[in-house]
Amino acid sequence: MPACNLSLQIVPLVEEEQVYPLVDKVIEMIKSSGVKYQVGPMETTMEGELEYLLEIVKQAQQLCSDNGADRILSVVKIDYSSRGVTIDEKVGKYQG
Amino acid sequence: MPACNLSLQIVPLVEEEQVYPLVDKVIEMIKSSGVKYQVGPMETTMEGELEYLLEIVKQAQQLCSDNGADRILSVVKIDYSSRGVTIDEKVGKYQG
Amino acid sequence: MPACNLSLQIVPLVEEEQVYPLVDKVIEMIKSSGVKYQVGPMETTMEGELEYLLEIVKQAQQLCSDNGADRILSVVKIDYSSRGVTIDEKVGKYQG
Amino acid sequence: MPACNLSLQIVPLVEEEQVYPLVDKVIEMIKSSGVKYQVGPMETTMEGELEYLLEIVKQAQQLCSDNGADRILSVVKIDYSSRGVTIDEKVGKYQG
Repeated sequence: MPACNLSLQIVPLVEEEQVYPLVDKVIEMIKSSGVKYQVGPMETTMEGELEYLLEIVKQAQQLCSDNGADRILSVVKIDYSSRGVTIDEKVGKYQG
Repeated sequence: MPACNLSLQIVPLVEEEQVYPLVDKVIEMIKSSGVKYQVGPMETTMEGELEYLLEIVKQAQQLCSDNGADRILSVVKIDYSSRGVTIDEKVGKYQG
Repeated sequence: MPACNLSLQIVPLVEEEQVYPLVDKVIEMIKSSGVKYQVGPMETTMEGELEYLLEIVKQAQQLCSDNGADRILSVVKIDYSSRGVTIDEKVGKYQG
Repeated sequence: MPACNLSLQIVPLVEEEQVYPLVDKVIEMIKSSGVKYQVGPMETTMEGELEYLLEIVKQAQQLCSDNGADRILSVVKIDYSSRGVTIDEKVGKYQG
């Protein structure tokens, strides 16, 4: 399976001061998953096999739920091609 | 597992006149999956178990790829709660 | 200027039981703006001139802020064409 | 007016090899606008006054239309607070 790009913005409905710490936990989980990833101001983009990245999305919901979020709103963007898509081809020249 | 809401907007990079027919194929696939769904002008929202809905998202990418889209951009929104989320609780009063 | 489609999902960071009432206020404001609109489970889609619809997006942020939301996360999707885009051409056959 | 964060993903429906060059034109326009911005793999995030950032979103549609895109799909995410929101508070520690 070719690699694709998937970005995740997760908004747990918790007290505002708890939002960043909870998002940090999600990023820590993404880091521990071993996929290539890049943290941005509105979303974290991952590169890998689609099925595995969707599994991470699922786990992120559970993680927020387990940490006190009664409700979680997420936005997931997928960039998919049968030839594969990489983070580098898109931002390499901008992030020199 | 509680039901959640997941909406999918899929944009296959094909000739403009082929976009709607391809999106129709995706909606047909969603229909045949048996989940509750509602077609909107910018996305189709489904109600069901998160893992199953993410599997549909994966299949939608493959379906577009198999039908000639070299590249597919998707936006997926998830509304998740450990108590469950329904389409009706959100739009029932607006859609009479 | 041709009509375009713009959808708005707004997530005010407030107590969960206050989310729907606040979103209802936003929908009421959209209704009073006079544009054609359709409420969906994850977003409300409007049809009209882009500049006017973006003004509504701006007012929606202010409305939530004025009603006690310390923080507001929104997702706006735009479907734009120099020939115009209508809600009907996209969902007419599904909502017939 | 406080600064907010706004991210823009723009998908012009053009031949696949023309997508990146057209997105580059949009990023060039953002750069020339003078706002603080950060290019990511799936979207470019800007920091500034909401009204000005929405004006840039509008110009981006026009720019793609003027450059041959018959149709343009965009995803805009807004992070708004009456106290202001900065890119640094969100990614500073990750991009050290």
